[in-house]
Amino acid sequence: MSGNQNLRALFEPGSVAVIGASTRPGKVGHDILRNMLSSGFEGAVYPVNPHASEILGVKCYQSVVEIKEPVDLAVVVVPAKAVVPVVEECGQKGVPMAIVISAGFKEAGPEGVERERQLAETARRLGIRVVGPNCLGVMSTSNGLNSSFARGFPKRGTVALMSQSGALATAIIDWSIQNGVGYSKFVSFGNGVDVGVVDLLRAWEDDPETKVIVAYVEGLPNGPEFMEVAHEVSAKKPVIVMKSGGTAAGARAVSSHTGSLAGSEQAYDAAFLQSGVVRAQSMEELFDLAIAFAYQQIPAGRKVGIVTNAGGPGIMATDAVEHSGLELASLDVGTVEALRTRLPEAANFYNPVDVLGDAEAGRYTFGAETLLGDANVDAMVAVVTPQAMTQPEETAKGLAQAAAASEKPVLSCFMGGEAMKEAVEHLNNEHVPNYRFPERAVQALGAMARYGEWREEPPDEVRRFEADEDAVRAVFERARAEGRVNLGEVEAREVLSAYGIAVPENRVAESAEEAERQAAEIGFPVVMKIISPDILHKSDIGGVRIGIRDRQGVIDAYDLMLLRVRRYAPNAELRGVAVQQMIHGGREVIVGSTRDPQFGPLVMFGLGGIYVEVLKDVSFRVAPFGEKHARQMVGEIRSAPLLHGARGERPCDIGAIVECLLLVSQMVTDFPEIVEMDVNPLRAREPGAGAVAVDARITIAEE
Amino acid sequence: MSGNQNLRALFEPGSVAVIGASTRPGKVGHDILRNMLSSGFEGAVYPVNPHASEILGVKCYQSVVEIKEPVDLAVVVVPAKAVVPVVEECGQKGVPMAIVISAGFKEAGPEGVERERQLAETARRLGIRVVGPNCLGVMSTSNGLNSSFARGFPKRGTVALMSQSGALATAIIDWSIQNGVGYSKFVSFGNGVDVGVVDLLRAWEDDPETKVIVAYVEGLPNGPEFMEVAHEVSAKKPVIVMKSGGTAAGARAVSSHTGSLAGSEQAYDAAFLQSGVVRAQSMEELFDLAIAFAYQQIPAGRKVGIVTNAGGPGIMATDAVEHSGLELASLDVGTVEALRTRLPEAANFYNPVDVLGDAEAGRYTFGAETLLGDANVDAMVAVVTPQAMTQPEETAKGLAQAAAASEKPVLSCFMGGEAMKEAVEHLNNEHVPNYRFPERAVQALGAMARYGEWREEPPDEVRRFEADEDAVRAVFERARAEGRVNLGEVEAREVLSAYGIAVPENRVAESAEEAERQAAEIGFPVVMKIISPDILHKSDIGGVRIGIRDRQGVIDAYDLMLLRVRRYAPNAELRGVAVQQMIHGGREVIVGSTRDPQFGPLVMFGLGGIYVEVLKDVSFRVAPFGEKHARQMVGEIRSAPLLHGARGERPCDIGAIVECLLLVSQMVTDFPEIVEMDVNPLRAREPGAGAVAVDARITIAEE
Repeated sequence: MSGNQNLRALFEPGSVAVIGASTRPGKVGHDILRNMLSSGFEGAVYPVNPHASEILGVKCYQSVVEIKEPVDLAVVVVPAKAVVPVVEECGQKGVPMAIVISAGFKEAGPEGVERERQLAETARRLGIRVVGPNCLGVMSTSNGLNSSFARGFPKRGTVALMSQSGALATAIIDWSIQNGVGYSKFVSFGNGVDVGVVDLLRAWEDDPETKVIVAYVEGLPNGPEFMEVAHEVSAKKPVIVMKSGGTAAGARAVSSHTGSLAGSEQAYDAAFLQSGVVRAQSMEELFDLAIAFAYQQIPAGRKVGIVTNAGGPGIMATDAVEHSGLELASLDVGTVEALRTRLPEAANFYNPVDVLGDAEAGRYTFGAETLLGDANVDAMVAVVTPQAMTQPEETAKGLAQAAAASEKPVLSCFMGGEAMKEAVEHLNNEHVPNYRFPERAVQALGAMARYGEWREEPPDEVRRFEADEDAVRAVFERARAEGRVNLGEVEAREVLSAYGIAVPENRVAESAEEAERQAAEIGFPVVMKIISPDILHKSDIGGVRIGIRDRQGVIDAYDLMLLRVRRYAPNAELRGVAVQQMIHGGREVIVGSTRDPQFGPLVMFGLGGIYVEVLKDVSFRVAPFGEKHARQMVGEIRSAPLLHGARGERPCDIGAIVECLLLVSQMVTDFPEIVEMDVNPLRAREPGAGAVAVDARITIAEE
Repeated sequence: MSGNQNLRALFEPGSVAVIGASTRPGKVGHDILRNMLSSGFEGAVYPVNPHASEILGVKCYQSVVEIKEPVDLAVVVVPAKAVVPVVEECGQKGVPMAIVISAGFKEAGPEGVERERQLAETARRLGIRVVGPNCLGVMSTSNGLNSSFARGFPKRGTVALMSQSGALATAIIDWSIQNGVGYSKFVSFGNGVDVGVVDLLRAWEDDPETKVIVAYVEGLPNGPEFMEVAHEVSAKKPVIVMKSGGTAAGARAVSSHTGSLAGSEQAYDAAFLQSGVVRAQSMEELFDLAIAFAYQQIPAGRKVGIVTNAGGPGIMATDAVEHSGLELASLDVGTVEALRTRLPEAANFYNPVDVLGDAEAGRYTFGAETLLGDANVDAMVAVVTPQAMTQPEETAKGLAQAAAASEKPVLSCFMGGEAMKEAVEHLNNEHVPNYRFPERAVQALGAMARYGEWREEPPDEVRRFEADEDAVRAVFERARAEGRVNLGEVEAREVLSAYGIAVPENRVAESAEEAERQAAEIGFPVVMKIISPDILHKSDIGGVRIGIRDRQGVIDAYDLMLLRVRRYAPNAELRGVAVQQMIHGGREVIVGSTRDPQFGPLVMFGLGGIYVEVLKDVSFRVAPFGEKHARQMVGEIRSAPLLHGARGERPCDIGAIVECLLLVSQMVTDFPEIVEMDVNPLRAREPGAGAVAVDARITIAEE
């Protein structure tokens, strides 16, 4: 379905009925009608209220079906109980779209949940798209549509905003009006019974009035669909999302390393990263990013030029450049020479360029223009403090002109209050995003640079490897037939093998002589392990022997193992002894997967050993993913340099780790019944020598 | 010296001379005079300008010596070249205190550096205390003293602010006037030729008008003195410092692990932590913390109650509570019952308490008061969004009254712009710190809670251990006599032993037979190492053998070692072979020290192995420190749980690690010539079994 077309009636209705319009000021049904009439909307507005003949000078209807003319959009403000009947009437009238403002649904206990279900069903049956219930309403600034009960109407701009929380939406609108931030569209979608994040992304994807999409959400009901759509939309325009709400999942029991390390925050981070979504960590950052992306171009690179009229804030900006993953540009010799021609001797001609505290507007603007002209500068941050000779407004004008004349983004920080007020207003009008403190300007620029790089990257191609799915299915069926969901080492190894993941050579012996012969065939040294579904901690009862170097050692180990097991676990079912190739050398890493309730299979990578869990030095991606993300996963853990041979360590076969990640990604995508799995350790040998899954655990869902 | 008395003339002068007062508006010398005359100062003000008879209606003097009456404070605004002569005149006149506004000193090249040296010398000779040069001036709101050239004068309040940067000071003042933040004192100390951070801390330590001290600095010239004074002052009132400016040191060559991990940021963090100083990471945080500490009480604990009229921002505040190291309070049953009596059914009676979007002021205030009354709540964060029924001003009034009636801190977040403007003004007047976003309120509260805990902690007592300093001195002298600054393992072990740090038993053998005998005495297994000042990487040429289990092994190792060394390093000077007790079991940790240019000896702790450097999981303290800090060092690394026996690891002797840290702290304090040292690894055995320094390196300064 193309949300684009579907939501046209929401943003560009020819006529709007306000059902539940009220005669009493202060009531939501009154405020919405007033907003509809007073924000510049030129279409027809029909108040519906059986107890009034006119409201605010407009003729009132008994019900929506009474209206003769077609109605494109119904704004429903009746008590919760009356909503479904009203929607029925809308169906009768042929209204294609409704905004249900009324509260008293899912958020209001079991009765409300049932009411919301009925609303969903009714709307679906009648083919009516619904925004809400329990929402603030919808705005579109280009045609003056204001079907909300917010106080005030923001000015026209290029930010499209959606909010799950109506309360936050009111705060945002109020704040935006004070600060002159302009919007194209605004939707408070409340409980999201029908229209939600994905529909709105689609609706704004090609909206020429929208340059940046901003969303506040507390959850995403359909993770994979969100990722797909957000990815497509992000390739066209930035999508900035603030997701609040900690890990609600909480009490789920986990049995794997991966499960204990993967929370819903990790899943959101991975999903946003894979979709190109810019994540804001706070409301403040949401605003900071919104104006940066709305007002300025994406920088071509990470190299920042800083111009300032004071040393201190220049240092603060410089510090922030490093913390934000940006680089301080090295200025061209020509730039430095040019700066020397007009700046006083005591100025700093290198980056950050300090034009000094006594700079009037002309000198400051010269510094800014010269810096912007340097080919080594991808973006500029301009800092101004209100000193004795400072001309804030003139400086703002000069800077805005320099910014407008350049392809490069310019972000400013005019610090202060009263003295900077008019300068800041001018900057805002001229679309130079201004920040109260240098750090915030630099952080916003950092997010722009990362988004720009994401957009330039080649797409992540998910490649399919050959795999024996039948073999895996057989293993799972066998385990389930035995009433087990935890696969043992031998079964897990079969599964990995079926996907082409290298495992140690392995035989099962039922006598000491057989073990001896198998060990000789495999080649010494070998590892021996007792096989029993009843013994979970094999090492504790001497059920694991490593580094067995010769035939006699094998025979001794076999006999001892059986002796001990009979002594300490006399009732355990024995299925023989595994004789296994011993893999040495290389570095132990862990590749695992768990299932996130919102996004599905989440794959983890980290170094092996005790540090993994304590230091949480791991990376995540939502499966399926391709080589680009697999490589990023390996590279983004803090201890990655060790894999490349830092600190005198031997480098290891990164390519083999990447392949294992891709195979696991495919496996957990193919088999949604894999609830959790760890390949731990995967032993990555020297470059070219591959990686071997030495041990593994898999937990499958009960049927 | 008691800065307290010394700086009285700075803040409470009876008379002030403005030397360099100008007739021309817009000139700094004019603006300062105008500010002095118009801010309410009741003492005498004497303009000094040889070319004017009166300025702004006040009689003008040819020079300061011409003034008949005593002058307590001179504000100097003459060109840089004329400053020293003017200070000479001040000496003649007996002026005890001068603020040198003029720029053109240290910040302006070699000539300025010399000029600043002369200024310092002249002032010292004449016994004149100097603020500046290159500064904005000084304000004191209680007596209307405004010797600055800032635009505007902040209102009276309890924040005392000092700033190294004049430009930032102007921005801060301007911003504070707009936002109604009140100050007690304000000093821009510029180049700080005399009066600096330490003097101002002392001056404000017992100032009854100052509740919180805030400082912006770019460096601290005397680290140890700052730590001592800041510690004393912090025990009385909070000291909040923003230190900007990255690691300028940069290119220093380092030879130890510790040296490679210790930067100036680590030193500042440690010094601030040990002094009880609250560190602000940005200007924004500086303001956030200043109003929190100035307006509210320190919480008695970490348990936070949240009251809100909207779900979304309540979630944001809840998330922030966890991220800020605070805890969400579990409400008392009585509180929940009390809330039920007046809140609607759909409200949330548990923490965060949601009084719902339609709450008018009465209901909101009831919720806030009830929450504040819960004994499990140490502090409250109150969130308000501007919804249809919200009464922002009345709610602010109710909340302010509830806050005033409670001993517990209340921080608020009235979100929005225009709709919240008057509410926010009221909150500010009533000293309820208000933040634009919930996260910032919670973060400020987190800093308050940590400060409160610091103040309650018992002090860190530095205890002296017995040590043989002469033995250490002898080792250092011997090395220096041989022209070496890097001590080898044997020498380093002697040094550690002299301080009572356990080292493996160790002998030096000059023949295979001697080695055999020594090994038998020490007990097997042993380690053997070649001793040669010429061989740096012993292992590379087979110069280290571990785990030698019997007499024959010792003989074999000795012979092989000498054979190999002769083959691969025929010219190396051999000093025999070390036969060493082999220490096994336990966990490898690292204890090291380096010397910070600002704070002196910095001691590091971390886990041993390759992860230390790559993951930078280490902790630092400035030496000397006592057991409290040594224990904190061990506890604050991310991998600390491993030392206590997490993840199936065996616990180790934390007490022995702590003792080693204390001994190293004492050693590097006693011997400033120790430039860098690593005890790596220190092998910490099971609890009660101690810790042994298996290997160590020490670098001393050239004489």
